[in-house]
Amino acid sequence: MAPSHDTVLLAHGGGGRLSQQLIEELLLPAFAPADGVLHDAALLNSPGQTLAFTTDSFVVKPLFFPGGDIGRLAVFGSVNDLAMTGARPVALSLGMILEEGLAMSLLERVVHSIRAAADACGVAVITGDTKVVERGKGDGIFINTSAIGVVEHALKIHPSAVQPGDAVLVSGDLGRHGVAILAAREELGFRSTLESDLAPLHTTVNELISSGVEVHCLRDLTRGGLASASDEIARSAGCQIELEEAAIPLHSSVNGACDLLGLDPLSMANEGRMLVICPEVHAAKALEQLRHHNPAACKVGTVHSTTTSEQQQPVLLRNTLGVLRPCDVSRGELLPRIC
Amino acid sequence: MAPSHDTVLLAHGGGGRLSQQLIEELLLPAFAPADGVLHDAALLNSPGQTLAFTTDSFVVKPLFFPGGDIGRLAVFGSVNDLAMTGARPVALSLGMILEEGLAMSLLERVVHSIRAAADACGVAVITGDTKVVERGKGDGIFINTSAIGVVEHALKIHPSAVQPGDAVLVSGDLGRHGVAILAAREELGFRSTLESDLAPLHTTVNELISSGVEVHCLRDLTRGGLASASDEIARSAGCQIELEEAAIPLHSSVNGACDLLGLDPLSMANEGRMLVICPEVHAAKALEQLRHHNPAACKVGTVHSTTTSEQQQPVLLRNTLGVLRPCDVSRGELLPRIC
Repeated sequence: MAPSHDTVLLAHGGGGRLSQQLIEELLLPAFAPADGVLHDAALLNSPGQTLAFTTDSFVVKPLFFPGGDIGRLAVFGSVNDLAMTGARPVALSLGMILEEGLAMSLLERVVHSIRAAADACGVAVITGDTKVVERGKGDGIFINTSAIGVVEHALKIHPSAVQPGDAVLVSGDLGRHGVAILAAREELGFRSTLESDLAPLHTTVNELISSGVEVHCLRDLTRGGLASASDEIARSAGCQIELEEAAIPLHSSVNGACDLLGLDPLSMANEGRMLVICPEVHAAKALEQLRHHNPAACKVGTVHSTTTSEQQQPVLLRNTLGVLRPCDVSRGELLPRIC
Repeated sequence: MAPSHDTVLLAHGGGGRLSQQLIEELLLPAFAPADGVLHDAALLNSPGQTLAFTTDSFVVKPLFFPGGDIGRLAVFGSVNDLAMTGARPVALSLGMILEEGLAMSLLERVVHSIRAAADACGVAVITGDTKVVERGKGDGIFINTSAIGVVEHALKIHPSAVQPGDAVLVSGDLGRHGVAILAAREELGFRSTLESDLAPLHTTVNELISSGVEVHCLRDLTRGGLASASDEIARSAGCQIELEEAAIPLHSSVNGACDLLGLDPLSMANEGRMLVICPEVHAAKALEQLRHHNPAACKVGTVHSTTTSEQQQPVLLRNTLGVLRPCDVSRGELLPRIC
């Protein structure tokens, strides 16, 4: 059934007839519950003993970019947050805040993209909500996805499990998502053929754990990139992370774009890359697993114990001459609305 | 620790140092996890066999209104969506989309209000996310709360459980939230001392079930009010709902405001009122329970079986002369951003 209106009206969020129409014409066909009846909350059988719960809002600009769109991003983003605890995704919620005047055809494309991405992850959107704000009080579509997962392993995957001597790995080359988004913003006058690395990571994580790697910590390298993730983990774990600058895999287009725009590739956002911290003796096995999905996966650093004074510099970069310098965490202002 | 900036900057959403500061100075003190360490997803022990899952975004304007604010609304709103399945709230997520330039003091007030509301419901905010959009691309604060609850009863509370002959009850007088919001919008030039009915309903629902009332369906009367909720349930259940116009409890100020503005009080939003559908023989017991919380709770109608042609008019209103007319579901355009 084609939606009855060409654009989103304020009344589509008012809870009356037009809200019902939007649900019946667009959302139910995409995400229909088994019985076709909507209720205030969805019920599900508890999938296991330990659950994971996460939420993420997406305000990416533009809504469609090389390698993805806000819908895929919203699904894979929350699936990946679950995956960072080793959890298998079970149920998704979908909250949309639409701007009055949004083209209905664009909303349809995003909704179908959400459905396809959820199908690809084997997870269902089981509850949702849609609001509409006046023209100029939003920006097309903002999406929130929250997700429930189930933890089916016995590992403690957490910053506090990180140990001195652990190896620090990345699951592929870094910075593609950030560069793809910046290139898609026409006002920057900068072009690239690079696509976002946007991808779900739960299968990779599952294979890593199933292969017997004693994973200590996982972190997807989204906003703030490798620099922020390393900083947060080192500070949480009370350790120091030393990164080998030359080992960090970067596509030449990412390096080129960062040079051009004066950005740090280590702070660039990814949406399908993660940090893996595991015992050094498990690093080779972990890399073998990671390389089934991405041949650029590699070891980029090591965890050290610290003295109190050294904790002022939680992350160090070692350059090719062996010189160490603190890794800079950006203030964050250069890359708004990257996800 | 007072936040280091007076207003929200784009960089507070960039994933770098300022994002960390916002979390450490404002969000962790309000919602600190037991170990003080944030991870991509929160873990929880499964609270039971059947879970309820819901999501809701809040774009209410203004952010503070008589009887509440967007923070309380976001917590009670999701708690109430869970309660409509009879579920006890267990965990909340908090997704915030902030507009650049928002006063940090206002954000602090909202965050503290969220914490106080969650405490009042015995539920914890266990995972969250914050994004920032440019000035003029949002409107102060939009909030998404998603919630996990546990179902600890054996009833089927669902539109499909509604039976001809069932009684239709409301838990209190209707329309206060809608009128309070409209009065708070100064541009309407209309004043009222009425406060929103905003309140959590899970305790009332729990008492109703514990008292032995065979609850068939619950629905909180938010956007679209009694008119929309009755329409949706009647259509889902394949029944007709007949409402007694004179029985519907309305405060004189709600009637007055609706007369003045040309609005239908039955379409006005509530945030602390629900529809209860149960067997007629349980209606007296249900009302006794409901009146512990609100003496205005009463029976407003009855469920009838329908022929196919009658399903074109899922809700009928009977006036004091006994004349029946179809109940009108608004298109929804009159009351944008009520929640």
